[in-house]
Amino acid sequence: MGNELKVKEPPEELVEFLKNSKSLILVTHINPEGDALGSTLAFGMALERLGKSVALFDRDPVPEFYRFLPGWQRFTNSDFSLLLKNFRAHKCGIDGLILLDCNSPERADIKVPSDIPLIIIDHHETEKSFEVAVPVIKWIVPAAPATGMLVYNLIKNLGVKIDYDMAVSLYTAIAIDTGTFRYSNTTPEVLQIAAELLSLGVRPEMVSEALYDSWTTGRFRLLVECLNTLEIDGSIAITHVTEEDFKKTGTSSEDTENFSNFPRMIRDVKVSVFLRQIGPAKWKASLRSKGNINVAKIAEVFGGGGHKNAAGFMVEGRLEDIKRLIVEEVKRSMGEEVKG
Amino acid sequence: MGNELKVKEPPEELVEFLKNSKSLILVTHINPEGDALGSTLAFGMALERLGKSVALFDRDPVPEFYRFLPGWQRFTNSDFSLLLKNFRAHKCGIDGLILLDCNSPERADIKVPSDIPLIIIDHHETEKSFEVAVPVIKWIVPAAPATGMLVYNLIKNLGVKIDYDMAVSLYTAIAIDTGTFRYSNTTPEVLQIAAELLSLGVRPEMVSEALYDSWTTGRFRLLVECLNTLEIDGSIAITHVTEEDFKKTGTSSEDTENFSNFPRMIRDVKVSVFLRQIGPAKWKASLRSKGNINVAKIAEVFGGGGHKNAAGFMVEGRLEDIKRLIVEEVKRSMGEEVKG
Repeated sequence: MGNELKVKEPPEELVEFLKNSKSLILVTHINPEGDALGSTLAFGMALERLGKSVALFDRDPVPEFYRFLPGWQRFTNSDFSLLLKNFRAHKCGIDGLILLDCNSPERADIKVPSDIPLIIIDHHETEKSFEVAVPVIKWIVPAAPATGMLVYNLIKNLGVKIDYDMAVSLYTAIAIDTGTFRYSNTTPEVLQIAAELLSLGVRPEMVSEALYDSWTTGRFRLLVECLNTLEIDGSIAITHVTEEDFKKTGTSSEDTENFSNFPRMIRDVKVSVFLRQIGPAKWKASLRSKGNINVAKIAEVFGGGGHKNAAGFMVEGRLEDIKRLIVEEVKRSMGEEVKG
Repeated sequence: MGNELKVKEPPEELVEFLKNSKSLILVTHINPEGDALGSTLAFGMALERLGKSVALFDRDPVPEFYRFLPGWQRFTNSDFSLLLKNFRAHKCGIDGLILLDCNSPERADIKVPSDIPLIIIDHHETEKSFEVAVPVIKWIVPAAPATGMLVYNLIKNLGVKIDYDMAVSLYTAIAIDTGTFRYSNTTPEVLQIAAELLSLGVRPEMVSEALYDSWTTGRFRLLVECLNTLEIDGSIAITHVTEEDFKKTGTSSEDTENFSNFPRMIRDVKVSVFLRQIGPAKWKASLRSKGNINVAKIAEVFGGGGHKNAAGFMVEGRLEDIKRLIVEEVKRSMGEEVKG
């Protein structure tokens, strides 16, 4: 079956199961981003349109800049077992637990009850296998640009008409995972679906502003501090922020999301290393690369991991020593690539 | 006639004229960007496909990061009258002069010969009227997100099959003028056309990298210098770069393109003012705004102009005085808006 078909055609087993269900709990991963939140919200609404009872769960609060997503308040963040208990009490049972945008209960930080079937809808590579006593239906398509694409096709398949609220969530899900249509996973189908969602009233500038232009002043000042530390060694860029910088700007670690991408704007930079201090002599390293350079391999040397173009690890020591070690490792890795 | 129709349907007069022409010179505006270059290149190729002789002119060299556009070397930059003379000599006459992405000869810095019909294909508001002795055919559609959209529809209308090279140019033209599909002018039709262009082989990540991740190290260091000057007054952000900064980073004024947009990332910033020094006590101001704030009106107070969300002007004086004056004017303008 071609990749495109896999994205377009949910397994019959999944569609049948959903049609026969009455009450469902939708769960997404910890630290949820746009694809996690948008897919879950849109799918929850579609299931409700079909008359199902639905609850939404993710462990962490919805980040502020995603609070334009219609219905974001529907997410329960506190106690998963309490949610199960209440839902069971009011709905006379739970027909299924649907994991979205992740493919293990661990990634969602939940324990799967021993009596509820598990459904997984995701586009990530399966990282960990897990054992549960319940039946599992999986629709995992790593070739899908976003879980939102799978959910879009599933909603269509279930015969639900997409309304404005669902469209905003699906558009956001697909936009965030394709860099708003800038990454290589932006297929013609991505843009066709996005076009349809716009025709349902989604305003692209509203979503972009929420996603990209909603920084706090403190976060922006932290970025400037970070960029002031820029060192360039060959095609490697290195930046860092210290605990002192966080204090000075009134920010915290989550504010550094995406910082490692800025030096990638420089044509000659192939690898960007960003270090943030998490203790007196402890640092979290984020690596980003362009093209064929595999930073996951470099991260593994330091006991971390990730994907080809985005990886990370923890490291202890003096900042200058750490920088030197990482640069050496990156150079070694690039040299091997040249040879290989 | 609805806006969408205007974008889709070139005037019959224009189509007829093109069909009956044999040799044409295509001209775009000074300091050309992606829409100017992409529209002109794609249209030139399409006309050649129809057997026409074509020459391309713009006054300034093609910026380095646009040199991925197939055929960019075709642009002549030097002497327009010499180009006319040579073209006439070899092609036994010139049937028409086509201005793209601008609507006055002045904007392209050319003199229109007294014996050549002028065709204008553009999506900018007509800023200046001009008198020429020759017949003029105009297709100006301010509602079009990009001149590339008009050219796409015109190429289709002329019955030319779009190939990969044309697709890259058209995609770039449309991408740059819609902020790669982030601005409010991103219509469903924009994404449908972009989807078709991707299906012809355009790689979105290749275009994005060329457009957004091809900065020189000097330009990036200049940006950091600029961001270090950030001052925030209410919802107004002000930054500047000095002649000294240019010297220190080995950069020039064109490297500041887009600098004024960075402080717009901050949620509470509604207007971003960027000043670059162009003489001992002379500055060029660029204003960018979010939403309904009309910076063109503010620029007019200082003798400049522009569009609602992007405008500019020249100003002389001491930096601190200039900043104070501009901030006062922006506040006045925002106050009026609140009242209005």
